[in-house]
Amino acid sequence: MATELSIGVDIGGSKISAAVVDVDGVIRERVDRTTPARDTRPAVVEDTIVEVVEILCSRHAVAAVGIGAAGFVDGTGTRVMFAPHLSWRDEPLGARLGGRLKPPVVIDNDANTALWAEHRFGAAVGAQEVVLVTLGTGIGGAILINGHCYRGHGGMAGEFGHTRVVPGGRPCECGRTGCWEQYCSGKALARFARDAGRDLVGPQLTAAAVAGDIVAQGAFVEVGRWLGIGLANIVAGLDPELIVVGGGVCAAGELLLGPARQALAATLVGAEHRVVPPIRIATLGPDAGMIGAADLARSRR
Amino acid sequence: MATELSIGVDIGGSKISAAVVDVDGVIRERVDRTTPARDTRPAVVEDTIVEVVEILCSRHAVAAVGIGAAGFVDGTGTRVMFAPHLSWRDEPLGARLGGRLKPPVVIDNDANTALWAEHRFGAAVGAQEVVLVTLGTGIGGAILINGHCYRGHGGMAGEFGHTRVVPGGRPCECGRTGCWEQYCSGKALARFARDAGRDLVGPQLTAAAVAGDIVAQGAFVEVGRWLGIGLANIVAGLDPELIVVGGGVCAAGELLLGPARQALAATLVGAEHRVVPPIRIATLGPDAGMIGAADLARSRR
Repeated sequence: MATELSIGVDIGGSKISAAVVDVDGVIRERVDRTTPARDTRPAVVEDTIVEVVEILCSRHAVAAVGIGAAGFVDGTGTRVMFAPHLSWRDEPLGARLGGRLKPPVVIDNDANTALWAEHRFGAAVGAQEVVLVTLGTGIGGAILINGHCYRGHGGMAGEFGHTRVVPGGRPCECGRTGCWEQYCSGKALARFARDAGRDLVGPQLTAAAVAGDIVAQGAFVEVGRWLGIGLANIVAGLDPELIVVGGGVCAAGELLLGPARQALAATLVGAEHRVVPPIRIATLGPDAGMIGAADLARSRR
Repeated sequence: MATELSIGVDIGGSKISAAVVDVDGVIRERVDRTTPARDTRPAVVEDTIVEVVEILCSRHAVAAVGIGAAGFVDGTGTRVMFAPHLSWRDEPLGARLGGRLKPPVVIDNDANTALWAEHRFGAAVGAQEVVLVTLGTGIGGAILINGHCYRGHGGMAGEFGHTRVVPGGRPCECGRTGCWEQYCSGKALARFARDAGRDLVGPQLTAAAVAGDIVAQGAFVEVGRWLGIGLANIVAGLDPELIVVGGGVCAAGELLLGPARQALAATLVGAEHRVVPPIRIATLGPDAGMIGAADLARSRR
């Protein structure tokens, strides 16, 4: 029997990546495209997806296409209702792509696809009740319950990044104030560092912190503390067996997780009388969303 | 075929109630006991439970006993790990009662049993993804997913009342600060009213508000606003189809729910691009926990 292949597509703010993935989660071939001038209009994104999928389909026998998008996807996996960081509002992406591509297409939130990949092939193998939080520019969140992605009634569960943690707090791109991702994300990390006199971002900040720069380390402590506080709220509600943290900010490892574990134990109700779930770093890196989208499309097909 | 009966027991801070409940959720007979001098030591509570269950068992053929307790119950339904408002710490209540009572005994969190009753016989009939929040002295919370009570990995899910909504906020009985129930509960309601010059509690406050007392109404507006803010955080995470609000504070009806709906819509991310779940008042009143405990015990037996 031939190995069954599927395609996973990851739609980021400035890049679209697609890969042919096998049943073991191994990437057989990948194509990356920078979206022209960070143009996130639906038509531009759609044309780019069609282009990369057709390239891959011309070289592989593919059973299905899964797409992970940084937005609210409806419960049927066909429409992107709202994307805080893209210009999309109620886009019927599934129907549009379905009319242009041969294999069946399923859309999901990119945090769901990343969690699914970690559950099948990464840090969450064997765990049934898992919360994933990804710390990139903002926060992505996803929930595994009884070994299945829990998407909520309308498909929009897991938007922990936009829970309010500070009354009257910092304004957020979502239009509200005090959202968790304003205090716990790559953007918040850069801001904490800048406020303390280090004008570095992302990998530079991580490198500085690892090299012993106490100002950079202080920024990770602050983001880590907010990570633990937000996770305490999630654990109070969901009581998962495992928390997986992904996204670029994780490269700092224990510089981030140490303060997060402390804050989680200090904030979680009844922490002395229960098992506080462990926090693990995601193991599949930035390809998780693509790998999970491919695997979910294969199984939902 | 004989109607199958079971017993539901509700353990409150000052009262223990037990009832024989039939398969339609109808109470056939009930017994109430005030715990002596509000003594919440496990042995006193245990003796009282045995007494009321034996009275009911002597008059009815009972298949199982379900107990709803205001505390963290472990995933197996046998131990009470922690009860913020009782004096219990890791109590093997199930084993103790199992040795003294004939029918099988199952323990659950009292918010879970109340949600189950509302799902089977009350405000949440027909809904599969539901969040219940009860506003009494504190906040109880429970989650229905795919038509089943979701208890989390360790049995402690749904403790929304102890999520932190105000950094450095009011101290809570749980030992933390800024917990939601410090701003949204019967206790918070009385405090808001007292701070504004009305020294009334509970039903008196509700009566004053209904009669047009604008100070009393203001306290409900404040609690309602916090209710909506906290629900927005829960909905961002769980995206349920329905929210049910129970507990004594609900007697104020729209005086509470009006401000709550406004705050929910104003705080929930993407509210303009999604279905904001309706908020309904629980319909089974203070007997919900008992009825649900009986029904759950029958089906889990």
